[in-house]
Amino acid sequence: VVRREVVQIITPGTVMEGQAIHDNENNYLLSITPFEGEEIGLAAVDMTTGEFKVTILTDFEELINEMTGYRPKEVIIPSSLDVEKQQTFEARLKVTLSYEDHTEPVTEAVALVETLSEGKIKETCYQLIRYLQRTTKRSLEHLQQAVYYLPQEYMSMDAHSKRNLELVETLIDKKKQGSLLWVLDQTETAMGARMLKQWIERPLLNKQTIENRHELVDKLIQHFFQRESLQEQLQGVYDLERLSGRVAFGNVNGRDLIQLKKSLEKIPEIFNTLHELNSSYANSLMQNISDCSELRDLLETSIEENCPVSITEGGIIKDRYSDQLDDYRDAMRNGKAWIAALEKQEKEITGIRSLKVGFNKVFGYYIEVTKANLSQLPEGRYERKQTLTNAERFITEDLKEKEALILEAEEKSGKLEYELFMAIREQVKAFIRPLQQLANVISIFDVLQSFAEVAERHRYVKPELKPAGNVDIREGRHPVVEKMIDEGDYVANDIVLGDDRELLLITGPNMAGKSTYMRQLALISVMAQTGCYVPATHAELPIFDQIFTRIGAADDLAHGQSTFMVEMLETKHAVSKSTRNSLILLDEIGRGTSTYDGMSLAQAIIEYIHDEIGAKTLFSTHYHELTHLENDLPKLKNVHVSAKEENGTVVFLHKVVDGAADRSYGIYVAELAELPDKLINRAKVILAEFEKEQSDIQAHRLK
Amino acid sequence: VVRREVVQIITPGTVMEGQAIHDNENNYLLSITPFEGEEIGLAAVDMTTGEFKVTILTDFEELINEMTGYRPKEVIIPSSLDVEKQQTFEARLKVTLSYEDHTEPVTEAVALVETLSEGKIKETCYQLIRYLQRTTKRSLEHLQQAVYYLPQEYMSMDAHSKRNLELVETLIDKKKQGSLLWVLDQTETAMGARMLKQWIERPLLNKQTIENRHELVDKLIQHFFQRESLQEQLQGVYDLERLSGRVAFGNVNGRDLIQLKKSLEKIPEIFNTLHELNSSYANSLMQNISDCSELRDLLETSIEENCPVSITEGGIIKDRYSDQLDDYRDAMRNGKAWIAALEKQEKEITGIRSLKVGFNKVFGYYIEVTKANLSQLPEGRYERKQTLTNAERFITEDLKEKEALILEAEEKSGKLEYELFMAIREQVKAFIRPLQQLANVISIFDVLQSFAEVAERHRYVKPELKPAGNVDIREGRHPVVEKMIDEGDYVANDIVLGDDRELLLITGPNMAGKSTYMRQLALISVMAQTGCYVPATHAELPIFDQIFTRIGAADDLAHGQSTFMVEMLETKHAVSKSTRNSLILLDEIGRGTSTYDGMSLAQAIIEYIHDEIGAKTLFSTHYHELTHLENDLPKLKNVHVSAKEENGTVVFLHKVVDGAADRSYGIYVAELAELPDKLINRAKVILAEFEKEQSDIQAHRLK
Repeated sequence: VVRREVVQIITPGTVMEGQAIHDNENNYLLSITPFEGEEIGLAAVDMTTGEFKVTILTDFEELINEMTGYRPKEVIIPSSLDVEKQQTFEARLKVTLSYEDHTEPVTEAVALVETLSEGKIKETCYQLIRYLQRTTKRSLEHLQQAVYYLPQEYMSMDAHSKRNLELVETLIDKKKQGSLLWVLDQTETAMGARMLKQWIERPLLNKQTIENRHELVDKLIQHFFQRESLQEQLQGVYDLERLSGRVAFGNVNGRDLIQLKKSLEKIPEIFNTLHELNSSYANSLMQNISDCSELRDLLETSIEENCPVSITEGGIIKDRYSDQLDDYRDAMRNGKAWIAALEKQEKEITGIRSLKVGFNKVFGYYIEVTKANLSQLPEGRYERKQTLTNAERFITEDLKEKEALILEAEEKSGKLEYELFMAIREQVKAFIRPLQQLANVISIFDVLQSFAEVAERHRYVKPELKPAGNVDIREGRHPVVEKMIDEGDYVANDIVLGDDRELLLITGPNMAGKSTYMRQLALISVMAQTGCYVPATHAELPIFDQIFTRIGAADDLAHGQSTFMVEMLETKHAVSKSTRNSLILLDEIGRGTSTYDGMSLAQAIIEYIHDEIGAKTLFSTHYHELTHLENDLPKLKNVHVSAKEENGTVVFLHKVVDGAADRSYGIYVAELAELPDKLINRAKVILAEFEKEQSDIQAHRLK
Repeated sequence: VVRREVVQIITPGTVMEGQAIHDNENNYLLSITPFEGEEIGLAAVDMTTGEFKVTILTDFEELINEMTGYRPKEVIIPSSLDVEKQQTFEARLKVTLSYEDHTEPVTEAVALVETLSEGKIKETCYQLIRYLQRTTKRSLEHLQQAVYYLPQEYMSMDAHSKRNLELVETLIDKKKQGSLLWVLDQTETAMGARMLKQWIERPLLNKQTIENRHELVDKLIQHFFQRESLQEQLQGVYDLERLSGRVAFGNVNGRDLIQLKKSLEKIPEIFNTLHELNSSYANSLMQNISDCSELRDLLETSIEENCPVSITEGGIIKDRYSDQLDDYRDAMRNGKAWIAALEKQEKEITGIRSLKVGFNKVFGYYIEVTKANLSQLPEGRYERKQTLTNAERFITEDLKEKEALILEAEEKSGKLEYELFMAIREQVKAFIRPLQQLANVISIFDVLQSFAEVAERHRYVKPELKPAGNVDIREGRHPVVEKMIDEGDYVANDIVLGDDRELLLITGPNMAGKSTYMRQLALISVMAQTGCYVPATHAELPIFDQIFTRIGAADDLAHGQSTFMVEMLETKHAVSKSTRNSLILLDEIGRGTSTYDGMSLAQAIIEYIHDEIGAKTLFSTHYHELTHLENDLPKLKNVHVSAKEENGTVVFLHKVVDGAADRSYGIYVAELAELPDKLINRAKVILAEFEKEQSDIQAHRLK
């Protein structure tokens, strides 16, 4: 019995190729390391690109939100982790859980973490490295150095808000089409597409970094010809990140290296194009970045352009790269030329026109003469080798001699080519770090040209960012809705939030577009802080530290949770975590319970946000009664979606204007839907009674 | 240039096999024929089973609902059909539209429609037949005779209600698991599974037919051993419907015929088992049904049990079926025996132990002697044929003579087998009608044994049906929720609807299980009218002619429609189509607009149903103010979901009891979700103010 040793374990998080890997998506493997108290370390790696990140979270809910952003397939945990938490991972993240309980010191691959501080951060990385070494049993040298980041560097959005805003996929169908990513993605490379997705999920907080991106977008918009050149050049760049991953993993072939070479050939052109823009941000990115021209030269001289996929059958190495290989190839070529000459010569001498020289794997080279011509063959000229039904096959001593030379040269050249290829692959490995840096810069350029392209196509403007400032959006549009409906049909809306209007109370029936209005503000803020231009004619924005949204209930239904409990849990999350620099979007809070009950809660929540938090807030409601709060709360303003009556029916103008809504839209809609006249008339009578009661109460109050 | 004629066009509705065809689902092709006025003919065919139905609808909305029930992949229309209607088909049914504009008389396949009345019904069928003849270019003889039905024979449910009640798939995930079908499906055959799905989508209105089904379910529950035998026997029955479809289409192979034979062998056993039950319904179904024993005998004598998939390589026909074939096979066997004897004999004579007889396609049979043994071979014993490196191959005249005999017999036998197989296939075709009838009866038995199995497992009871009677369900359960949660955790509920309580107004917060209670009544009614037992300890039910549900909004969100407009359109549909024999379930109607507006509409709708329609109605609402209607409307009763306070928090008991709900649940839930104390306290103060105002109004009214 031969004992087989496990060579490699492939898991959902460590798979390097095949159906599970999509060009435009990262494939993250996460690792969780809990510490004393509530702190938890989180390390993330994408084996296909080498990206390696680490952070420390301070509570479990924060951890789940952070993990959701990675959309992992697999999470590594110590088996001692709380069972309830394990179940939460499975239920909310739908991941494979893998266990890693070894704790011995890591000795290899320590270079990956050498820039990190000792203690929790390093230990979090070690946990992941141990798992990778145990399962992949390969070099981890293609991984990038682990980067420590603070979640606080990015705008914070909980998992529900991200889903609900449809940043990278739609809520119901989980498709890219219909998401913000779909609108913004005009990237030319898979690396760029992946980076764009990461950026959209993690808008920035640092004003300088955001403005750096805006600066290059601006330059790219202004220089149409350079942008067009850049796009063409990027189209010639293959997936450098994943190619270098495969180099390190040792499963790169000749074709991969040709892709690498072709990509590198584009780099000087790309850099030239960008230098022409005079962008200080682009110039700073290109500084100290190697264009890997030595690697390009190596591949140019060594690898055959049209090489086969197989690396063992020769045809990979170019002529003139190795003298020895050239010698073998000469021998093969000469031998074959000699045989070709032999055929010609023997045809002439024997006069047999159908005489031919052939080759098969069993007998090698032979001369074949058909039975009909055998009589013309001088006896003893060749040695008989094989009898077929219609022909005889012969050999000669010279032929067999040449055959031996050819076959030997072939064998040696195949072996030599393989050795040479392996040596080249080793040389390429030395370029992994520079290649990764290059890939990063190229990805940034790709995303920013995509932003420029989209901005121009859809007439976006550069937002002006003022930390802790006000919102002043003129003719703002919802980027996705605008793209999906016919040009010209979209009604743009201003959104102004300032010192005396921090909280807008939006009234009006559902069909008027309230939630589009609310989402529009969130999406414009996300776009601005991602470095993109925004759909408006003018936009001044603060830098929001967090966005909370509670809009719609579709996904809760899918998870079978009770709407009202979820509503309250999310409201609690919003009011306890938000600051005066946050954006809160609340849609019809309270509708899940009885009228006065819900109305009381809604009012208490509004007052709490107004008095205690001071976050910029849009609050839509059907509790028309809340509009009187405008009298008591100085920073609250009523707005509504305007409508007009036309031929006895109501037309919604999708225009948000100041003031409270007329309260009888609902009955108009019921008329539009052609409910029986008798029913409609009765509803009008009842409404009139309610309204009289209300005004009696008002009168009573004023007394 | 060879002119190629189109042999067959395969479309989504005419595909017979492959990935698009699922065992447990029909694949319907629909055809629409509009007539003068609003009338529209609808024909439906499942090419894989031969089912063929036709009906005439009186308006477009009815047509869409009827079409939805078929879940078609393809719909045939005249190209002159209104463009807006075509778009509606594509948007709401997501089907391929095919055009058929020929109008010439149908001459073939007229037997399919011979029992139908002339005019619109036949013309609707002809339209479909024309399309099938044009595309499939094959015999349509496997289609069953077209059956005319009235949509009014079945309980009417609009597409939204079917989706929302999750009859055959879940709302969000579109999966079987979690649907009513999932609970009820313990069928043993694919035919039974398909029929069950049809039944659930089309509950019956005819009391006698429903009670026939109940009778057999009853017998099957009481006779455990017969039920168990029946299940085992059904497991041996293959898909007779689709097998006969393939027979007629001419693409049946030997293995299919073996499946057919094995299935037919089970029929007498199945009939015997059912006869033992003494069920008058089962007996009536078996009367005049052939068990196709002649066909079984034919297949038993003719087709080889382990035949290959290919029908051209022989090995399909049994020995003793054809004398001629037996002769050929004897010749082959004798020839091969002679050759085996030859090898033995020549080994002995020559003393060469490694001598062997072989066969290849080029040289036929040969005797092979290795080079090492050549010297032992007497010169001239055999004729030299081929020289190999290590051996020589020889023939003899006798060997070649036998070879010719064997090869000739082989060729002739292959040809004969194919001819015999084709003849058998033709004979099988004659049994298509009896096979289809048999398949139908077996499917019914399978569905009813499934009902019996499920009823016993989950302790269902036989419902008592009284047309236009009352609802009296004791300890009713929601069949799907009950199966998904832990045994014992489920809280059963009574539902009583009678002369003085036609309309129940349900109050209480969302998490308490109101919509489960409402759905429970709809599902129990669907089950009862399908012929199934129901989850309760006692159930008296009317026969509902229609069920209207307006619960939840998830699927509207998916289609991007405004919730409130959809709500009003569906309410209009419910109030204009329902009768006093209908069931109406309305969940929080009015919540899509402002409070008083929505409340007025809700009250007007309740009054309209109460005064004008008299349908049995469950109406859940957060408008607590509507509970006073109990005083004015004699047939309306308030119910609510009970709760109790425990350790300062509220526990929902999921028990529905008479009376209106306490109005402050919402604030309790907010406390459970741990909103800030300050916020909760403020909400309580506001609520107290509202309540005081309300009681002031009440006092004012009483004055």
